[in-house]
Amino acid sequence: MSIALLPEALRNILEDLERFPGIGPRSAQRIAFSLLNESPDFFVKLQEDIAQLAKGIAKCQTCGMLTDGVKCKICLDEKREKNVLCVVESSLDIIAIERIGEYRGVFHVLGGLLSPLDHVGPEDIGIDLLINRLVQEKPSEIILALNPSTEGETTALFIKKIVSQNNLEITVTRLAQGLPTGAALEYADDLTISHAFSGRRTLTR
Amino acid sequence: MSIALLPEALRNILEDLERFPGIGPRSAQRIAFSLLNESPDFFVKLQEDIAQLAKGIAKCQTCGMLTDGVKCKICLDEKREKNVLCVVESSLDIIAIERIGEYRGVFHVLGGLLSPLDHVGPEDIGIDLLINRLVQEKPSEIILALNPSTEGETTALFIKKIVSQNNLEITVTRLAQGLPTGAALEYADDLTISHAFSGRRTLTR
Repeated sequence: MSIALLPEALRNILEDLERFPGIGPRSAQRIAFSLLNESPDFFVKLQEDIAQLAKGIAKCQTCGMLTDGVKCKICLDEKREKNVLCVVESSLDIIAIERIGEYRGVFHVLGGLLSPLDHVGPEDIGIDLLINRLVQEKPSEIILALNPSTEGETTALFIKKIVSQNNLEITVTRLAQGLPTGAALEYADDLTISHAFSGRRTLTR
Repeated sequence: MSIALLPEALRNILEDLERFPGIGPRSAQRIAFSLLNESPDFFVKLQEDIAQLAKGIAKCQTCGMLTDGVKCKICLDEKREKNVLCVVESSLDIIAIERIGEYRGVFHVLGGLLSPLDHVGPEDIGIDLLINRLVQEKPSEIILALNPSTEGETTALFIKKIVSQNNLEITVTRLAQGLPTGAALEYADDLTISHAFSGRRTLTR
């Protein structure tokens, strides 16, 4: 392997970088070589930041969002409507939804999606925590903002079933599926077109 | 900005990651979140590897290739033909050429390409070091394996001119330009097609 020609310090970094998601051998090489031109200050900062990250990051006791304190900024915000709960897979989804700035309710982070094939069951994604919260807080609506994948569907149906079984008077909704903005109908996949048709809306004059 | 909702330790890492080439906000988020699931061992290794890199990496005294020692493995290899010199822009190019395993000569790393618009002149890319080496070692051929860009062209022509001016009896060659393997002629750009025509070769029966 020609990579063996490189100094060991560089090969080690390449090995680390290739563990990152979405980083292949070529991207790792580009990043490693760009690091060689960085200032000593940047290396100090990078090491400190990694040390901080290694100490672990806390999760909000209420909703599971990553946070610096005991509760996250959204749960602490008194202006947020506590009777609408948006259920997401990860904290990253909260960032995406908050970017739009339209949702005024609170969140609940599952930490995963049900996936029987990968042996991920209800206990692995903390469904009991969600149920406890629903029983205690009695929101009027929960919005399932889960990915439109098989795992997302399975998880949504499972939550819907549990809400019914527990006789909770909560409206369970899902995000609309259909054509994404800017997409060309001719290139959309069959399932997306099917969803776009079944979810069609009446235009008022 | 919704990113402000994230813990500071995570935001700091995002900031670091976005400095890497080819890493945008989305990729940085994916990598940072994957780091949260890494083991303490990995963090220790990552910090050590960065510390090693921060100490700096030496360059081969002869050819400029990144190396652990005073000379690189290629210059130390007695089986390599010293009368053919392949001139490249960076050590990464050596890795690419060595991957093919066909070239048996030695290398010379410029460390950049001439770019008058960016104020990169001959002194910035160590042209004098190359000339000294050519005068001392008197190779029979130098292969200019530079990128087929304006900067690569400029640098190649400049080196060719200097070799002539110094009355060095060295054959100066460039890598062939033309259609890359697997490319479709209809999608090739004009310059590539032009090079492919002007560089056409006679097929022997």
